[in-house]
Amino acid sequence: MPVGLSDQMPELFPIAGMRLSSVRAGIKKRAGHDLVLIELDEGCNTAAVFTKNDFCAAPVTLAKAHLVAHQPKVLMINSGNANAGTGEAGMQAAQATCTMAAKVMGCEPEQVLPFSTGVIGEVLPVTPFEVGLPAAAAELSVTGWAAAARGIMTTDIVPKAVSKKLDIDGHAVTITGIAKGSGMIHPNMATMLGYVATDAAVSLPLLQKMLTDATDDSFNSITVDGDTSTNDACTLTATGRSSLPEISDAHSVAYAQLSEAVTQVLTELATMIVRDGEGATKFITIRVEEAASKAEAKQVGFTIAHSPLVKTAFFASDPNWGRILAAVGRAGLDNLNLTAIRLYLGDACIVENGGRSPTYTEEQGAAVMKEAEITITVKLARGTAAATIYTCDFSYDYVKINAEYRS
Amino acid sequence: MPVGLSDQMPELFPIAGMRLSSVRAGIKKRAGHDLVLIELDEGCNTAAVFTKNDFCAAPVTLAKAHLVAHQPKVLMINSGNANAGTGEAGMQAAQATCTMAAKVMGCEPEQVLPFSTGVIGEVLPVTPFEVGLPAAAAELSVTGWAAAARGIMTTDIVPKAVSKKLDIDGHAVTITGIAKGSGMIHPNMATMLGYVATDAAVSLPLLQKMLTDATDDSFNSITVDGDTSTNDACTLTATGRSSLPEISDAHSVAYAQLSEAVTQVLTELATMIVRDGEGATKFITIRVEEAASKAEAKQVGFTIAHSPLVKTAFFASDPNWGRILAAVGRAGLDNLNLTAIRLYLGDACIVENGGRSPTYTEEQGAAVMKEAEITITVKLARGTAAATIYTCDFSYDYVKINAEYRS
Repeated sequence: MPVGLSDQMPELFPIAGMRLSSVRAGIKKRAGHDLVLIELDEGCNTAAVFTKNDFCAAPVTLAKAHLVAHQPKVLMINSGNANAGTGEAGMQAAQATCTMAAKVMGCEPEQVLPFSTGVIGEVLPVTPFEVGLPAAAAELSVTGWAAAARGIMTTDIVPKAVSKKLDIDGHAVTITGIAKGSGMIHPNMATMLGYVATDAAVSLPLLQKMLTDATDDSFNSITVDGDTSTNDACTLTATGRSSLPEISDAHSVAYAQLSEAVTQVLTELATMIVRDGEGATKFITIRVEEAASKAEAKQVGFTIAHSPLVKTAFFASDPNWGRILAAVGRAGLDNLNLTAIRLYLGDACIVENGGRSPTYTEEQGAAVMKEAEITITVKLARGTAAATIYTCDFSYDYVKINAEYRS
Repeated sequence: MPVGLSDQMPELFPIAGMRLSSVRAGIKKRAGHDLVLIELDEGCNTAAVFTKNDFCAAPVTLAKAHLVAHQPKVLMINSGNANAGTGEAGMQAAQATCTMAAKVMGCEPEQVLPFSTGVIGEVLPVTPFEVGLPAAAAELSVTGWAAAARGIMTTDIVPKAVSKKLDIDGHAVTITGIAKGSGMIHPNMATMLGYVATDAAVSLPLLQKMLTDATDDSFNSITVDGDTSTNDACTLTATGRSSLPEISDAHSVAYAQLSEAVTQVLTELATMIVRDGEGATKFITIRVEEAASKAEAKQVGFTIAHSPLVKTAFFASDPNWGRILAAVGRAGLDNLNLTAIRLYLGDACIVENGGRSPTYTEEQGAAVMKEAEITITVKLARGTAAATIYTCDFSYDYVKINAEYRS
């Protein structure tokens, strides 16, 4: 079961200028909604980040092209089929569904951004969209966020949504976002799927900068299994309906405040994905400090987070810190000062001077490990940079879920 | 159970000039032998490769230093304790056991190469060596290879040994080797533990070259879980007792023949480790062809081999080739030509022109996947380099073995 998450979503504040809906079109083999529409009013700005996987899906390629041509009026998301590894036939299917959506929504096909998630290698079937799109268009509502959060789920156990209100310079500003993802999670410049919006007005270049920066510390700092998906994408829309004047200066206080809040929303969504990671029983925060650069801090953090030996030890609540040490040792940093590195499990210092800390007892480690939420801290003694990586453990259920996924 | 391996070892030909023994000293908590001695006659040449993990174990650091000072007379291997992450106390224990072995064997402490394998983070206990070393010395025998293969096991289910006789220029030459390893297997410049010997005479620089080259295609081409151990080491000893004149020319026919046979022995030992990989039910050969360089071929092969999603699909006998494609796509190669890449499962072409091959059927894939031994071939269409990576699947038992390892 997801670690520290429930099926209950928080109150999701509407974002003026956006309407959402979710229906069952018949794309998923299992029951449940599988088609989500998000309609954006004229004047919205939308920024996006996409997977860096070379074998990115047809909808990713198409969405990138559409975003260059036009600001989008419609975000169209289907679950149940990733339309990845589908070659020319997949691209034609993606284009066909955009054309169908444009007709229903009264816009140009290039104003539709398509997103797909689900099984790789099967061409997206177009027929379910014939009934699904008009049905979804009829249901569009400013209160549709919760339904949309459920509609984009695949192996997710719980829906993921975050909503915040803040005050910037006396103006009320709202941010609401949804995301999905549970397996094939090691995003590179994006997440599985995330849709975040604010009613603040933000110029497009600043909106893209805000999203890219926030992604680096959130979706690009999580891993479930080290597998970067072919379909990752995250968008950030600014509808401009708040009374706050447009933000167009990256050095303004308003930019800093909104950027911090957006980063918080993305980080909450990202950690929800980890908490609902396939088979997860533990939520693990890996803090790497005293690094020479943020890049090397992330490198060490991800090496620990990807280690199946570390992850199975967490599943067993076994304070087998030797495996963490071995992961630090193979992370590929030059000139590691082994005797200066310190390793903490929770607050307990486990390793110093190249070996077990004299103050550490197995009882201390066992007490930390039996919790559902655990923090590891590695202090590298090389500088002042730091990074935080979030991951989960590796359980029987991870194997079960992925061995049975297509059957 | 190990894939295609039995507990039965092949006939292991003695190597004149070497004697081996294995005893229980009481280092392992479970039953079984845990101390192995290998005695080398005067005139033997020994080359070695060691782990590149920065947190290498005390015995690795000490063995490297000893090898620089002297050619070894004794290889001393204990299982049950890795003596890694043990700082200064671990180094003192390693030195103490070398001094004890030197006294028993009548040599200098620097002529003893120590090796340890087992749990990380506990200082090697010295007391078991007091009784164990004299007992092991008393049992030394030219026929001790099989006992030694069992004595170095930890989570291995079956012992791993290979023996070959060949004819070089009319002279009979023998090669015999043993290895251990089952988890924390992603060797970098070495294996878990491997000891290979030949009765041919080979000059020391050539012996090191032969071992380094052979390691690259064998132990450095396997992975069980992507975790590089702190204790990996492999030695190659040439006793010079064959009638074949000393090999001292890297361009000689004799060097080529012996080198090829040594590579075969190391590759057989390496694939045995994968076949006995923790929880393995499938043995998977990943062949990457048409690469621009061997390095990028290995990079693609290891990205596939490390993917938990690919490995769980193999466990389920599910031809979920989309996961293989996604792994190729995130392997980090610049300018991949997606439409030129072909992917084969066994002999069946699955992917071409960026999508599923029109000739491929799920039945073809299912037939290949239900076998215990499976070959994937990726043709990158970028050049003529190739590499072969060996791995196993990811099963419930991998989780079970590693969740319960210390309990």
